[in-house]
Amino acid sequence: MKKSRLEAFSDGVFAIAITLLVLEIVVPHIEEPGELGQAILDLWPSYLAYATSFLTIGIMWINHHTVFRQLGEVDHRFLFINLGLLMCISFVPFPTTLLADYAWGGNGEAAALTYGITLTITALFFNLLWRYAAWNNRLIRHDADPREVDGISRAYLPGPFMYGGATLVALVSPEASAALYLAVAVFYVGSSSFFGREEAAL
Amino acid sequence: MKKSRLEAFSDGVFAIAITLLVLEIVVPHIEEPGELGQAILDLWPSYLAYATSFLTIGIMWINHHTVFRQLGEVDHRFLFINLGLLMCISFVPFPTTLLADYAWGGNGEAAALTYGITLTITALFFNLLWRYAAWNNRLIRHDADPREVDGISRAYLPGPFMYGGATLVALVSPEASAALYLAVAVFYVGSSSFFGREEAAL
Amino acid sequence: MKKSRLEAFSDGVFAIAITLLVLEIVVPHIEEPGELGQAILDLWPSYLAYATSFLTIGIMWINHHTVFRQLGEVDHRFLFINLGLLMCISFVPFPTTLLADYAWGGNGEAAALTYGITLTITALFFNLLWRYAAWNNRLIRHDADPREVDGISRAYLPGPFMYGGATLVALVSPEASAALYLAVAVFYVGSSSFFGREEAAL
Amino acid sequence: MKKSRLEAFSDGVFAIAITLLVLEIVVPHIEEPGELGQAILDLWPSYLAYATSFLTIGIMWINHHTVFRQLGEVDHRFLFINLGLLMCISFVPFPTTLLADYAWGGNGEAAALTYGITLTITALFFNLLWRYAAWNNRLIRHDADPREVDGISRAYLPGPFMYGGATLVALVSPEASAALYLAVAVFYVGSSSFFGREEAAL
Repeated sequence: MKKSRLEAFSDGVFAIAITLLVLEIVVPHIEEPGELGQAILDLWPSYLAYATSFLTIGIMWINHHTVFRQLGEVDHRFLFINLGLLMCISFVPFPTTLLADYAWGGNGEAAALTYGITLTITALFFNLLWRYAAWNNRLIRHDADPREVDGISRAYLPGPFMYGGATLVALVSPEASAALYLAVAVFYVGSSSFFGREEAAL
Repeated sequence: MKKSRLEAFSDGVFAIAITLLVLEIVVPHIEEPGELGQAILDLWPSYLAYATSFLTIGIMWINHHTVFRQLGEVDHRFLFINLGLLMCISFVPFPTTLLADYAWGGNGEAAALTYGITLTITALFFNLLWRYAAWNNRLIRHDADPREVDGISRAYLPGPFMYGGATLVALVSPEASAALYLAVAVFYVGSSSFFGREEAAL
Repeated sequence: MKKSRLEAFSDGVFAIAITLLVLEIVVPHIEEPGELGQAILDLWPSYLAYATSFLTIGIMWINHHTVFRQLGEVDHRFLFINLGLLMCISFVPFPTTLLADYAWGGNGEAAALTYGITLTITALFFNLLWRYAAWNNRLIRHDADPREVDGISRAYLPGPFMYGGATLVALVSPEASAALYLAVAVFYVGSSSFFGREEAAL
Repeated sequence: MKKSRLEAFSDGVFAIAITLLVLEIVVPHIEEPGELGQAILDLWPSYLAYATSFLTIGIMWINHHTVFRQLGEVDHRFLFINLGLLMCISFVPFPTTLLADYAWGGNGEAAALTYGITLTITALFFNLLWRYAAWNNRLIRHDADPREVDGISRAYLPGPFMYGGATLVALVSPEASAALYLAVAVFYVGSSSFFGREEAAL
């Protein structure tokens, strides 16, 4: 298995998962004239959930490249850890729909918890993927910059804790939890744009 | 992040969004024999909306390449502007369904407005993407033709105004607005085929 | 626009359209124990329609490569003819669902007609694409074999007539028409496998 | 038809089919506050079916590369056998939904049988694909290692029997059959990770 093929396949799964997110936004069924406008505005939780998951998957795709750029080769265990990561990414449209449909209502807790658990497990897989590759430079290419490799190791560490924390917030306030998921993504885009560093990863 | 990977990922999102458009056309549920033919013909607003969005996304994909062909490199801010643009492109199937289901009826105004606002924001992102790259030749490749770069800058300017104008028409006549969205795409295909110039962009 | 990018984008649309076909096969809703088996068997029109469209799009993808292998360059008009062809390919899941749901029943005529008209228009676009490229060797690469080019021109000619004929059969017998669409694809696969020639096109 | 294009197209179909699996998991419709959590947990058959099919398609994608890495060229018959294989892979979301909705209930037998028959036919196509290519080294590249080629031939043989056996188990216990499909995939991932051999195929 060449690294480039694995990267192309992964890119495909990222691109499809991110584009399927729109299917979550269901066109309202309106009979009365003039009521569609309000119904479209009432879908704001769907737009928020769409933006949150789109940015999050987009950032994870960027991080995936940050990992792969440091690799010299891949082995079988790496292949399956990557498959597990893709299984999480592909799953995201389901909790996204949960978040859109229920986060702002009486069932918000279960929706925000499910969304947060999904992202936390995804962040754990990202750490596993990177640490498996970086352990004793197992799969790192020979001309990689050690400081860059260490920088990525440090940068990926907080991800599961951040998402785990936002998940726990759901027990107190599902709305705050949903806002935090979006805030994490927007904060990452902002800081990464400002500092211009890819390893400021989530 | 290499330019070629970003281009391949973007191409994937464009290809998936354009192919998902067909899911908007829902097969009618008919019980009586002989009534299906009329029901299929009655779906003409769906076919029009499908053609409009397919051509529009297709043209935007061509324009995306026009931009990328002038680039020498990409940076982090460009990466996120591009992600925002893809978030708009991926969103298009939703207002397309709105347009198909409601543009020719009592709720046409809200449907045509939503469609137009989506395309206007997309056109704004296109201008932002290009102007960010072209500003002081920030990301332009060294051997780019300055006249071609200037030509693109001029050609992308009218896009938001054209779509913004067609959006405003929705306040008077949703049907005219929907027809304008299609006309803009057909006009672009026609003039671009006639003059053979890519920079006659939308 | 480089030929390779246009080919990759087209491949993406073909791959997505062919994979979306499965969404047409809807899992039956069964409450009583032991009745699912019969319900799964009763979906045979869906399996037939799936196989017909899968083979047909697969063959068209092979033909698309036959065209592109002869090309030296692409121009703007070719780009838009190709976009029109992709618009037909992406549309196929809709008439496929019509065929599956209605071809064997009181509304078979309208379903089989719509399916046939779609394939006929697609075959016309294929001829337009090829003839535009081959006219006076406009876009043909310099080292192309003239006999191969002529062979493709001859091979693509019957396609619209074959599909047009199968479409007309729908006026007499929708079932026979549906069987013909599948027979055309199977016959192509068989003869092309036997003779090993790609230009035995549909 | 160059081998690399066929591989890229096949990769696209694998990536799309694996990502469409999530559409099988339908968000529950809940009105009462506090009932969503239980409803999400009650979807465990959907999560199991998702994981089973995701891992199975992922492993088949890896095996597909194992085949292609040994190829020097492709011919027309190979092209169509590959199309038949892709038709099976693309079909998997349908029996996956059957398995999720019915395997743990009064209609489990029909669901588990349909799932197993699909995987058995897919495994048969894999054997056909490989044996067609490997027969007298028909399509094998000249510098291929004969022991590796023989190893693949041996490794692919048990696949149809394993899936055929798990299918027959459905006649006795659909639940055991569903568990076996997952166990086969997990066992493959485990043994392949442990031995680090790609040819330990399914």
